[in-house]
Amino acid sequence: MKNDLFLRALRGDEVERPPVWMMRQAGRYLPDFMKLKAKYDFFTRCRTPELATEITVMPINQVGTDAAILFSDILVVPQAMNVPFEMKMGLGPWLENPVRSAADVEKVVVPDVEQELDYVMEAIKMTVKELDSSVPLIGFAGSPWTILCYTVEGQGSKSFDKAKGFCFSQPEASHKLLQKITDTTILYLRAKIKAGVDAVQIFDSWGGMLSPTDYEEFSWRYIQQIIDSLKGEAPVIVFGKGCWFALDKMAASGASAVGLDWTVTPELARKWTGGDITLQGNFDPSRLLSPVAEIERRVKEMINRFGKNKYIANLGHGILPNIPVEHAQAFVNAVKNYKS
Amino acid sequence: MKNDLFLRALRGDEVERPPVWMMRQAGRYLPDFMKLKAKYDFFTRCRTPELATEITVMPINQVGTDAAILFSDILVVPQAMNVPFEMKMGLGPWLENPVRSAADVEKVVVPDVEQELDYVMEAIKMTVKELDSSVPLIGFAGSPWTILCYTVEGQGSKSFDKAKGFCFSQPEASHKLLQKITDTTILYLRAKIKAGVDAVQIFDSWGGMLSPTDYEEFSWRYIQQIIDSLKGEAPVIVFGKGCWFALDKMAASGASAVGLDWTVTPELARKWTGGDITLQGNFDPSRLLSPVAEIERRVKEMINRFGKNKYIANLGHGILPNIPVEHAQAFVNAVKNYKS
Repeated sequence: MKNDLFLRALRGDEVERPPVWMMRQAGRYLPDFMKLKAKYDFFTRCRTPELATEITVMPINQVGTDAAILFSDILVVPQAMNVPFEMKMGLGPWLENPVRSAADVEKVVVPDVEQELDYVMEAIKMTVKELDSSVPLIGFAGSPWTILCYTVEGQGSKSFDKAKGFCFSQPEASHKLLQKITDTTILYLRAKIKAGVDAVQIFDSWGGMLSPTDYEEFSWRYIQQIIDSLKGEAPVIVFGKGCWFALDKMAASGASAVGLDWTVTPELARKWTGGDITLQGNFDPSRLLSPVAEIERRVKEMINRFGKNKYIANLGHGILPNIPVEHAQAFVNAVKNYKS
Repeated sequence: MKNDLFLRALRGDEVERPPVWMMRQAGRYLPDFMKLKAKYDFFTRCRTPELATEITVMPINQVGTDAAILFSDILVVPQAMNVPFEMKMGLGPWLENPVRSAADVEKVVVPDVEQELDYVMEAIKMTVKELDSSVPLIGFAGSPWTILCYTVEGQGSKSFDKAKGFCFSQPEASHKLLQKITDTTILYLRAKIKAGVDAVQIFDSWGGMLSPTDYEEFSWRYIQQIIDSLKGEAPVIVFGKGCWFALDKMAASGASAVGLDWTVTPELARKWTGGDITLQGNFDPSRLLSPVAEIERRVKEMINRFGKNKYIANLGHGILPNIPVEHAQAFVNAVKNYKS
């Protein structure tokens, strides 16, 4: 690997400066991505290895991040489980018949992922070839709880009340569903590692909707199963938006790194995670709308506070579509030019 | 006051059991509310003192809470400031021309609230008469930051990116807007107190979207101004959804109580707020979908953990429309039947 800074930071090695990448870096803020978006619909882009590869490599060439993350979507997993999500214009993910009963859960299957998601594995192999050992490639999956949220709600939501209502009124069925998603996710991430990704990230986008007790029951225990199952296969990064209350568990889970949103200060994050694990984050994506000089000042302050070692610079959530490319570049360059 | 449990808990007095009320208790889970909703549109209900009174008193009679909260909306404040919000069916709050520039901010006015919001003051006077000293009446306002969120975004949002983008790219204009909202809110809450409310609550519904540093700059300093201005006039409850990182500030602000969402454990909340201030919350609204016996068990556990003194039982956010009335009643009764 020509640039292995990201992998060294995941191992906790001493580094000259922190590595940097951005969640959703292969996305709508890039004009070249928008050209492909105009020509091909969302899941066509995910399912066509040539397109997924082109999109994945785009930010490496155009923004200069230290890692690539495979262009895909967390909902390809339920799609393979007989939960046929579509992407509706202006609305986002859409499921005609959401899973709302024990009988619905019965129809959800743990698939042969190598067969059902072969297009993901093809995209990984093609991307690895295209990257030609320049930077590492990250694979990802949604947490079982986050996948359940969409599967039960049937679409995006501000508070996923239907998903929570399902879990709280039908705990048995919901645990059955969560276990099926977990089993599939383990197979899926293992296949991705076999196909060539260098690390994987678990996105618990909606874990922060739960109380700490319910988080333990409906989200964390399944994430821990995934981490345990992948032990020794590849570094795992665990990221939960709004999951500040679970940072101690995440740090003790066996994951290689813990991702943070921007509501946690670097000092609290280091304290709660014990000071020894690699942390990733946590620039507020909206702060990329600040003037460039302000972005540079804030990036420097962020690294000073986290420390340059055991740290991966990133946003605290996905980059927003309305960020000027030059601002994304300023963010990445500010990390690259960091001097303590 | 026949039942002054709520006011005694706000003062920190020893009580026989905690008082209980529910955010949005005068709302869509009540069948009688739905009958009025079918006949009158949202702002008609807010603007007609007879209707607002009837709705405000409804949960006292039908669910038995220990305090009433005036039926109204946080957006009546910007409406009075020349920011003409409407309520759109199926979409929620809607503003044809959102405030997006310094020139737009210039057009926002600090109104004569007693004149522009006379219908609120009339509703308070009528409700006070109707309640006939049975339970205290709470008035409320959105935090300046939360009002800015809607005013700039022009509608509800998952992450209020446009509002944040406005603050981060045009800080001067945004502070001007926040100050106008703050000045209006102080006049508004003072008028409400004069009209007869016994306590006020400030709702910082979207404070949790900000980093701790940005929260201090764009939200907290204005809330503190409001608390300072109302000192000695009536007890103030400050509630910020997702604002766990600001609980220490809230406790030291001079407010009488701090509201909590359900992501904070009672133990951490007591620790961070210093153990001496009254806390309010924090049952997950979705947990009211659990079976009644489970609700009762969890309420008892919640009170045991917070302690019965310096504590007001409530939800961690507004009650959801799909909660069966009997479940809301079970919640309230579980608090009323509490024995330590």
